[in-house]
Formats: sequence, structure tokens, C-alpha cells
Amino acid sequence: MPTLYHAPFSRSTTLLVLIEEMGLTDRIELCEVAVTRRDGSGGPDPRNPHPEGKVPYLVDGTDALSERGAILTYLTDRFPEAGMGCPVGDPQRGAFLGWLFYYQGVMEPVLVLDEAGCDHPVLRATFRDMGAVTARLEAALARGPYLLGARYTAVDLLLSSPFHVMPEAIPDRPAIRDWIRRCAARPAVAAVTAREMATLAG
Amino acid sequence: MPTLYHAPFSRSTTLLVLIEEMGLTDRIELCEVAVTRRDGSGGPDPRNPHPEGKVPYLVDGTDALSERGAILTYLTDRFPEAGMGCPVGDPQRGAFLGWLFYYQGVMEPVLVLDEAGCDHPVLRATFRDMGAVTARLEAALARGPYLLGARYTAVDLLLSSPFHVMPEAIPDRPAIRDWIRRCAARPAVAAVTAREMATLAG
Ligand SMILES: N[C@@H](CCC(=O)N[C@@H](CS)C(=O)NCC(=O)O)C(=O)O
Ligand SMILES: N[C@@H](CCC(=O)N[C@@H](CS)C(=O)NCC(=O)O)C(=O)O
Repeated sequence: MPTLYHAPFSRSTTLLVLIEEMGLTDRIELCEVAVTRRDGSGGPDPRNPHPEGKVPYLVDGTDALSERGAILTYLTDRFPEAGMGCPVGDPQRGAFLGWLFYYQGVMEPVLVLDEAGCDHPVLRATFRDMGAVTARLEAALARGPYLLGARYTAVDLLLSSPFHVMPEAIPDRPAIRDWIRRCAARPAVAAVTAREMATLAG
Repeated sequence: MPTLYHAPFSRSTTLLVLIEEMGLTDRIELCEVAVTRRDGSGGPDPRNPHPEGKVPYLVDGTDALSERGAILTYLTDRFPEAGMGCPVGDPQRGAFLGWLFYYQGVMEPVLVLDEAGCDHPVLRATFRDMGAVTARLEAALARGPYLLGARYTAVDLLLSSPFHVMPEAIPDRPAIRDWIRRCAARPAVAAVTAREMATLAG
């Protein structure tokens, strides 16, 4: 059984929501670990096999992987019947992979660079800027309620995730705001949030 | 037949090498386009469907995708018999995806931030630094000549690619230098370089 190493209210929350959406709670073991938090609290957990002490990290037998986009691809391919993905051969397989890599390779760097207030021609050549990210999201959402069209997938889950914790970064565009609202309103998000709140209280 | 939009001596060269390694030159159409170069020469090409005028971009019927890691995953999954990948179900599928996303989401940002001379606690929390990248590569290369062990795959192709054009960024570690040398010595690299040189001459 695959084991997901996670920490409440972190990037690994995206994977807990995926597991909830896919109905895989009995098929993936969860191991909650400590991580260094933004405010300096916490710290790396000796039980966490991630090479840098981060979350998420997925171990499946002798195989193991970091990076949210990779874990989303891995799990949606491994459990294709649970929806949320675009298996190999699906007519949107390319777009599915393209968005997940775009998130990790471009969109998250742009958000983090903005937050850090960093700008440089070399960074712009590689990553462009929030205007280009906004244009890509808007173009896709002009064609349907979700980034791949009619269906909510792991792409929407990953690409909307930063805006739940950085609402100040939400582009002022109705189609994007509505999409973020639709993604945030998923029952799986409420269920995972309730469980994470309970760990804080405990 | 899928069409790859590419420009010589750019990030899309990685995909030309993949296509050569996989023996797919007859099965993928190539469309050479202009792009804006680092020195400001060139410019976006109206024939290039990439939403930001970049390369690489792959179009396959109604499906389309950007991002090198995505295109490497897509093509190695679509043509599994040609090697270079780890299809769904392969015991190293997770590690394969993890490395490709790690490259796009962490390693390339770290290289570009170093080049731009940018540093900030928020950037370090998200991406760490070249020391952490070096440690990951070294740990993997302690187990075999390639990042997944005995076999040269798309992971080696992508992760070694920046060092061919930024040799000053090569970590001063024998195992990493030797691995980059092994990757650069592939006949497919020489074949693609010769073809790209010919386009310059023409
Ligand atoms: N590139 C990784 C980043 C993971 C990451 O930075 N996770 C944070 C939690 S939000 C973490 O574990 N931080 C602990 C640390 O920096 O030591 C991904 O997208 O999965
Ligand atoms: N995140 C993309 C980046 C692609 C990229 O920046 N390509 C450069 C060529 S090396 C480009 O097309 N630049 C033209 C431009 O910035 O307009 C990937 O990894 O595929």
C-alpha cells in the first residue's frame, strides 16, 4: 500500500484532497510528520524519508517520489478508475501533463518570485510573469468551467491550490475568481479541512 | 502524427535528442520556428501555437502541451517500446516522474535564480539551493551511472541538459561531472548538434 508523508496545512494538503476526491482513503496509508514552517517553528522529522525533510513524499514499495505534480500524475495513473486524471491514451493526456508541469515549472515560481519581490530579465525570460499566468488561465476558462473543459480534474486541484492560502494573489478576473470558488467549494476540500482542524485541536 | 515546434539551440533541443534516442524521427513532424533569444534577437513566430511564443510545444491531434518535462513524459508513455521512459506500472515509475517534476519545479528555478543572483528566504524555503540539488544528484549517482540506476533515461537527458549550456554551473563533484560527460557523449547528442549546426550554416 502506498504511504503518503504529509503535514497539515501544507503543500501536502493538495494530496489529501486528491485522495478524498478519488475515494482512496482506504488504499493509501497516511503518515503525518513535522516540517519546518514558514515562521521557523517545527523542523525536519526523522521519520520523513523526503531527502530535504519536506512534504509531500510518496513511498510505494521500493519506489518513491517527491513533487506534488508528480504524485498527482502517479496516483491518477495508478488508479484510473477513480477519475481526476487523464490516463495515457486519453484525448487530453497532453494538456493534463502540460498543466501539471506548467504549474510546477512556471506558475509556482512566478507566485513565489512575486511574493519575494524578485525581478530580473533572466527570470522573466524563463518564467514570464503573473500577467502571462493570468492570460493562460483565462484562455482555458473561456472554454469551460474547468481548465480541461467540463470535468474537474487534478489540474484544477493543483492550480487553484495556491490561491486558497494566498488570496491576495488571485487575479482580478471574474472567470478566474469563479473557478477558484468552484474548486474551493468541493466537498473533499471541506472534509480535509475539517480533519486538519481536528489535528490542531488535538 | 504529433508535431513538435522547436528552435535550434534552445530548450527544445532536449526533445530533438529524445526523438533521436527513441528512433522516432519518422513518427514526429518537426516545425522549426523563431523565438526571442536571450540577446533580444529573433522574436515570436506567428506559426508557433505556444501561448507565449516559446519552444518546445507539441501538438498531437486536438491535444497540445508545453513544458519539456510534460513532453518527455507524454512521448515516452506514447511510445513505450522505444525505451527512455518508465511506463505506468514500471517499478521506477514514481522516481521517473519525481525527477522530471523536480527538474522543472526545483532544479531549473535554482539554476536560473543563481544566474540572476536572486536570493530570499521565501525562495530558499521553496526551492532550497544548488547545494541541495547537488546532494540529490550525488545520492542518486552513488547507486549507479544514471539517475535511475543502470539505464540512461529521459531523466538523465533532462537533468543534464542545462549543464551542456551552462558549464560554469556544474557542481565540482566527480560523480556528477562523470555523469554529465556520459550524457553528453551519447551519439544522439552529436547527431542533433550536427543537424542544428547545419541550420546555422544554411
Ligand atoms: N517542490 C515541492 C515543495 C514542497 C515543499 O516546499 N513543502 C513544504 C511544505 S508547504 C515543506 O515541506 N517545507 C519544509 C521545509 O522547507 O523544510 C512540491 O511542490 O511538492
Ligand atoms: N518552461 C518552459 C520554458 C521554455 C522556454 O523558456 N523556452 C525558451 C527557449 S530556451 C523560449 O522559447 N524563449 C522565447 C521567449 O522567451 O519568448 C519549458 O521548460 O519548456
